[in-house]
Amino acid sequence: MIIMHYPYDVNRKVRIIMKKVKIGYIGLGRRGTYVLKKNFSCMEEVEVTAICDRSTARMEEARKFIIENNHHDPIMTTDYKDIINNPEIDAVIIMIGWSGRPEMAMEAMRASKYVAIEVGCADNLDICFDLVRTYEETGSPVMMLENCCYGRREMAVLNMVKQGLFGDIIHCTGGYHHYLNEVELFKDIDAEEIPHYRLAQYRDYNRENYPTHELGPIAKVLNINRGNRFTTLTSFGSKSLGIKTYARDHLGADSKYAQQDYAQSDIVTTMLTCANGETVMITLDTTLPRAFYSRNFSVRGTKGMSSEERRVLYLEGMEEGISDNEEEMFAKYDHPLHAEYVKKGVKEGHGGMDWLVCKAFIEAVKNGTNTPIDAYDTATWLAVGALSEMSIKNGSTPVEFPDFTGGKWQNREPIVECKFCLDAIIEDNSVAVY
Amino acid sequence: MIIMHYPYDVNRKVRIIMKKVKIGYIGLGRRGTYVLKKNFSCMEEVEVTAICDRSTARMEEARKFIIENNHHDPIMTTDYKDIINNPEIDAVIIMIGWSGRPEMAMEAMRASKYVAIEVGCADNLDICFDLVRTYEETGSPVMMLENCCYGRREMAVLNMVKQGLFGDIIHCTGGYHHYLNEVELFKDIDAEEIPHYRLAQYRDYNRENYPTHELGPIAKVLNINRGNRFTTLTSFGSKSLGIKTYARDHLGADSKYAQQDYAQSDIVTTMLTCANGETVMITLDTTLPRAFYSRNFSVRGTKGMSSEERRVLYLEGMEEGISDNEEEMFAKYDHPLHAEYVKKGVKEGHGGMDWLVCKAFIEAVKNGTNTPIDAYDTATWLAVGALSEMSIKNGSTPVEFPDFTGGKWQNREPIVECKFCLDAIIEDNSVAVY
Repeated sequence: MIIMHYPYDVNRKVRIIMKKVKIGYIGLGRRGTYVLKKNFSCMEEVEVTAICDRSTARMEEARKFIIENNHHDPIMTTDYKDIINNPEIDAVIIMIGWSGRPEMAMEAMRASKYVAIEVGCADNLDICFDLVRTYEETGSPVMMLENCCYGRREMAVLNMVKQGLFGDIIHCTGGYHHYLNEVELFKDIDAEEIPHYRLAQYRDYNRENYPTHELGPIAKVLNINRGNRFTTLTSFGSKSLGIKTYARDHLGADSKYAQQDYAQSDIVTTMLTCANGETVMITLDTTLPRAFYSRNFSVRGTKGMSSEERRVLYLEGMEEGISDNEEEMFAKYDHPLHAEYVKKGVKEGHGGMDWLVCKAFIEAVKNGTNTPIDAYDTATWLAVGALSEMSIKNGSTPVEFPDFTGGKWQNREPIVECKFCLDAIIEDNSVAVY
Repeated sequence: MIIMHYPYDVNRKVRIIMKKVKIGYIGLGRRGTYVLKKNFSCMEEVEVTAICDRSTARMEEARKFIIENNHHDPIMTTDYKDIINNPEIDAVIIMIGWSGRPEMAMEAMRASKYVAIEVGCADNLDICFDLVRTYEETGSPVMMLENCCYGRREMAVLNMVKQGLFGDIIHCTGGYHHYLNEVELFKDIDAEEIPHYRLAQYRDYNRENYPTHELGPIAKVLNINRGNRFTTLTSFGSKSLGIKTYARDHLGADSKYAQQDYAQSDIVTTMLTCANGETVMITLDTTLPRAFYSRNFSVRGTKGMSSEERRVLYLEGMEEGISDNEEEMFAKYDHPLHAEYVKKGVKEGHGGMDWLVCKAFIEAVKNGTNTPIDAYDTATWLAVGALSEMSIKNGSTPVEFPDFTGGKWQNREPIVECKFCLDAIIEDNSVAVY
C-alpha cells in the first residue's frame, strides 16, 4: 500500500501503518452505541480494543456485539482514564454527552492519541483555545465527527463549488430543523426515566446549541480556516414556548416540566460574516412541531446555487422555475468520493455519511496524517455555542469570532479536493474531504 | 346597500357612498400601466377620471384602453398637481418610481384625497414620520398597495393563525427571491435604452430595498401595530458581485456597467424582533442567478407551521415528513375572502392578489372607512429600507424600530378577521384583510 502524505501543518513523527487501528471507545449512549455497532465495529482495519461507559449493562451488550462482529474481546471499564492511558490504543473516540468532551479530548491528546469527538458545542471560548493549544503542543490530531460533511448533497455541492461551477460564493444557509420534543427531550418520559440530558441544557442556556451539522459543510464550501475565516457572529432568540406547551399538553399542566421555564429560544437565528465578504445564516429549530426534518442547506454563487428545501442544483443558463432536479444533478456531479463509496455499497447510518466520517478518521490514524476536520475546525465549530450565547446576552449585537488559527488561515491553502480525493481513493482508499 | 362601519382610529367626516369612485392615476410605467389596465380600469365602481405621466405616448395608450374598458375619457396631464388639485377626484393612485412617492402621497392627503402607493421603501425615517403626521392631521387614509397580503397562501395562513390553529406564533420568515438582473435591472439594455431606475439604486445604496412583499403578510400574522410592534432591526450585507459579474458576461468587461461598483449586497439578511417576543427573518435576494422565484414565506407556531419552500401547511399531530400538501389544505383553510373571490372568478394579476388589493382600497374609499393597510402600516413597512441601511452602516448592529403609532399599538386591537371579513363579503363585498 502506498502511504499518501496529506498536506498538514503539524510535524508529527512518522507512524508505521498498523495492521489494525486500535481504538478505545468512550460513551455508549444511544448515539455512541449506534455508531460503534454500525461503523467502527464493522471496519476490517479497526480493532475495538476497549470500551467505556458508566453502565455495565450497556458495555456487556456492546461487548457481545464486538466479539461477534469485530472478532475481538474488548476491555471494559467504567473509568475513561483506563482508555486514555492504555498504550496499546491508537485512537480514542469520545461519544459522551455534551459536557466534558473537549476536556476529555485534551487528556487523550496529551497521551498522544488521535481523538474523535461527537458533534456539539462548547460552553465557553477558553476550552476552544485550550483545544487548539493542546493540538499545537502535542501534535495529536483531533476531529469532530461531523457526519453531515459527508452527506451526498453536501459533498456534491462542495464538488461543484470546487470546480468553480457556482462562481464566487456569496451566501450560505443552514439549519438544524429537527423537532426534538418527542424524539429526544421527552423520550421515555412516560416510563419515568431520567429525561434526556439535553433537556437540562434547554432549561439553562439560550444559544445556537447544535450548529455543526450545517456549519461544517458550509465551512468547507467557504474554505474557513484555509484562506477565509468567520469574523463576526450575531444570534437572535425568539421567545420560548415550544417545550412548555408540549409538556403542558403531554404531561399535564401540573407536571414540573410544564411549570418550569426554559431559557432556550424556540428558534435561534445566527448570522456569521466572513473575512472574504460572504454571509452565512443558520437556524436552530428544534422545539416547535414541524412537517419535515431539514438542514436547510443552500449555497449561493454568482453562477449557480443549491437549495435543499427545493431539492435543486442550479447553474446559470438552466431553465428557470425548476426544482427537484437533485437526482439528475447528482448523477453528473456526485463528489467522486461519494460516487466511489456508493459503487462499493453505501454502508448504514444516515445514507452512508456516518460510515464515511468514521472511515475518514480511521484513515488518518492509519496513515499518520492530520484529520480532514482538524483541531482548528473543531475549535471553530465548537465555539459557535458560546459565541451565540454571548451575542444573545448582549442584545443580539455582533461578537467577534476568534481566529483560532492565530493568523495561519491566511496561508493554509484549500486543497484541490476532487483530484486529490480521487487520487486518494485510487491509491489508498482515503476519505478526506477538505 | 348596508354601510359597514369598520373600526378605525381617525374621526373622518361621514362620506356619502359615491355612485363611482373617481380616481386619479399617476405613473404609467410598466407596473403602473399593468395595474391600471388589469385592475382599476375593469372595476365597475371606478371611474378613471384622470391619468398622469411624463410620457404623452404612454398616456395616449392608456387613454385608449380606458375609453374602451372604463367607458370614460380621462383627463391627461404631465403635472401630477393637476390630479391632486382636481376636486372631482376621490382617490389618487401613485405608481411612479421609487423616489418621491411618500412626498406626493402627502400632498394628495393634504388635498383630502384617499391615497394608494405602490410598494417600496423610504430613503429616511423622517419621511415615514411625516406620512403618519400628515395622516393624523388630515385624516386622509393612505394605503400601500401590498398585493402579497392578498396572496392565496398568505391569506390561508392568516386565516389559520387567526383561528388559533398554529398556537402561539414564534417566528416568521420571508424574502424577495427574484433574480432581477435580466428581467429588471438590465432589461432592454441591448436596445441602448435607459437602464431601469432600480439599477441606480443598486449602485448607490446598500439596504433591504424591497421588503414589503414578505413583511406585509408577516405583519398581519403578527398583529404589528395592533397589539404588537417591531422593536429592533438588524441587517447583514454580503459582498456584491452579482450585477458586476452579469454585466461583464453579458455586456463585456469594458462596459461601464461592468466597470462600476455596486453598493448593494447580493444578499441582505434582515432580522426583526417584536414586542411580544417573536423573531422575523427576511432576505433580499435579487442579483444572483436562481432556480425559482419565492417569497420564502413561513410561519412557525407552537401548534403548526407553514412553509412556502416545501409547499406545506402542517398542524401538530399530522404525519411527519410531509410536504406539498398546500392544495389539500387550501381546500379546508382558504381565507373566506379568497374562497369567495375564487368562486366569483379570480381576476388577473399574480393569481388575483393585484385585483384584491386594488379592490380593498376602492372599497375603503367607497365606504369612507380607513384602509385595511393604513398609514401606520405603510410607514412601518416603508421604514425598513432606511433602517436596514443604518444597521449595515453601523456594522450590522441592531437599530431601534420606531413606534410610528406613538404608543397606540398597545390598544389598537386586532380584528377577529375571518368572521368580520365573511360578514363583509356577505353584506357589502368588502375585501379588508387585517
